[in-house]
Amino acid sequence: MRRSNSLGTRFLSADSPIECQLSETQRTQRLPDLRRDPVTGRWVIIATDRAKRPTDFIREPVKIKGGFCPFCPGNEEKTPKEILAYRPEGNGKWSVRVVPNKFPALQIEGDLDRQAEGIYDHMNGVGAHEVVIETPDHAQTFATMPEKQITDVLYAFRDRLADLRKDPRLKYVLIFKNHGESAGATLEHPHSQLIALPIVPRQVVGELKGAREYHNLKDRCIYCDIVRQETKDGSRVVLENDNFIVVAPYAPRFPFETWILPRKHDSAFENSPAHLFPDLAKAMRSLFNRMDRVLDLPAYNLVIHSAPIHDQPTEHYHWHVEVMPKLTKVAGFEWGTGFYINPTTPEEAAKFLREAKG
Amino acid sequence: MRRSNSLGTRFLSADSPIECQLSETQRTQRLPDLRRDPVTGRWVIIATDRAKRPTDFIREPVKIKGGFCPFCPGNEEKTPKEILAYRPEGNGKWSVRVVPNKFPALQIEGDLDRQAEGIYDHMNGVGAHEVVIETPDHAQTFATMPEKQITDVLYAFRDRLADLRKDPRLKYVLIFKNHGESAGATLEHPHSQLIALPIVPRQVVGELKGAREYHNLKDRCIYCDIVRQETKDGSRVVLENDNFIVVAPYAPRFPFETWILPRKHDSAFENSPAHLFPDLAKAMRSLFNRMDRVLDLPAYNLVIHSAPIHDQPTEHYHWHVEVMPKLTKVAGFEWGTGFYINPTTPEEAAKFLREAKG
Repeated sequence: MRRSNSLGTRFLSADSPIECQLSETQRTQRLPDLRRDPVTGRWVIIATDRAKRPTDFIREPVKIKGGFCPFCPGNEEKTPKEILAYRPEGNGKWSVRVVPNKFPALQIEGDLDRQAEGIYDHMNGVGAHEVVIETPDHAQTFATMPEKQITDVLYAFRDRLADLRKDPRLKYVLIFKNHGESAGATLEHPHSQLIALPIVPRQVVGELKGAREYHNLKDRCIYCDIVRQETKDGSRVVLENDNFIVVAPYAPRFPFETWILPRKHDSAFENSPAHLFPDLAKAMRSLFNRMDRVLDLPAYNLVIHSAPIHDQPTEHYHWHVEVMPKLTKVAGFEWGTGFYINPTTPEEAAKFLREAKG
Repeated sequence: MRRSNSLGTRFLSADSPIECQLSETQRTQRLPDLRRDPVTGRWVIIATDRAKRPTDFIREPVKIKGGFCPFCPGNEEKTPKEILAYRPEGNGKWSVRVVPNKFPALQIEGDLDRQAEGIYDHMNGVGAHEVVIETPDHAQTFATMPEKQITDVLYAFRDRLADLRKDPRLKYVLIFKNHGESAGATLEHPHSQLIALPIVPRQVVGELKGAREYHNLKDRCIYCDIVRQETKDGSRVVLENDNFIVVAPYAPRFPFETWILPRKHDSAFENSPAHLFPDLAKAMRSLFNRMDRVLDLPAYNLVIHSAPIHDQPTEHYHWHVEVMPKLTKVAGFEWGTGFYINPTTPEEAAKFLREAKG
């Protein structure tokens, strides 16, 4: 095994200075990069040796197959009883509907009933699992539906959060979307989901902890610092508008992962002033349009990370949206370590998305 | 939203006692279970409403396709230069070969060169990425190869760990296996991989931390306690021999996830006495045989979790093997929370595997 510490390099240089210098340069260029997510401390390997352009991934474009759909207008009785709907035209036609998930991962009725089983701990799966049907139109996506429609979906997220917040048993609500079969979607009609949990999940605990520690140290919000540094640097910016910035994060787990960050500090999505939602819808539509062009209609997951629902507004946490296209397989190394190997640099991903029309 | 806290239940019972009692029983049976992994504190949802038997999963049996293979005997020059090989018969034929990965995620040459980029941190991707070719026979698997062959693979793991341990830049070595395309394997010839990292990965840090806290509190190893409770309880045991127990863990992330635990406490795999390896090979062969029967040749990931390579032996950490068949898709909820939804109880999974012939 050869090491290129400073001593070794000097020694080799003495032997054949020019050849060595060249190979040192090449090696530096090819050496994979280990990057640390500034909030959670999660490290990722940016394996540039495997550098991948958009066309290098195995593509499985998400296309509409059709068939019977319980979420299409006319089939309302096929879903569990409606929780919320917007019927803006007053003619009975809905634009957005929220219904309980027919196969819920958690159930709203019951006590938590925390118990031990020897050295183990468990509790009842109390919570909520709802589906947000984003549009009556089966064939639309966030890339194609009007901005007003996406804005209505965001209002529905906010209204459901405001309602679930009243339940003292619930601690956290995750809003997420699986788009395309390979990203875990089982129905193709455009929909998002929300799961309300009796526990703050570890991923969010990790972000909260990292953000709190940074604030303790610097008296600044780390996400506000990210927004500032990315705006100034520019190399990872996909798009911007008055209220949002879309970036490829510095240490992305997945190729073409992007984050949508509000410029104005707020810890909870549902506390955002209503005038922000049209700008978020605009940023989302543009981002998904660019992703569709660059990655050929990719499957993806989207999650909204917001503060736990009973927390008071804080100075250290900053809500945001994370978007993860499904281009690679997660395998043994990732499961065993929590480390991710990403074959595409975020700078390259951002460049492709920035230069695509959105 | 209706709540069945004790007040609500009493109120309803007064209305129609019998009907209510029945529905209460049904509800209790159907309520999903939230379980906490005793080491890492990770919660999982066992969604029994979606209870799945082995035949309910979409099966994609891993079958041999053949074609040119750089790992088959005769093609040795197609791999990078051999690091280790066992040639027990003295006739030049190898039984196990270790070679560098041709497309390494990390590279062995270079300094770590830790640096800041504004608020971000990164370092060079220094490490090792090796492939363990488990047998000359392209068509074998851990379910079919002789126990002696699996034992040799385990010796190769140990020998590589003992060597990489000498490099002070490296902190952790993960040994893992991706079996089948859907689990991330790109070559079908039986092989495992190892990645040596300059950082202890967060997943392992989480296990080490949980195990240390438990030991501080109880003065016992948590994994030893798991072995004791599982042996006594029996409902999650898949198989046992003198030195190993295979269980479906109490809070599994994935359906049919299993752990192989050594009965005797040891923090590092590579410190195990040589006489344990044949028993581990025996347990592995039987487990993979049972998985193949019950789940129809599933794709899977396997990881060995062992102490960081420079740590002295500790009383709190206990090396083990984790096996995760690839039966479900990880989607937005899991990425957003680190919470997993598992449709199969470990008790049911263990029963299926226990009753299958291995």
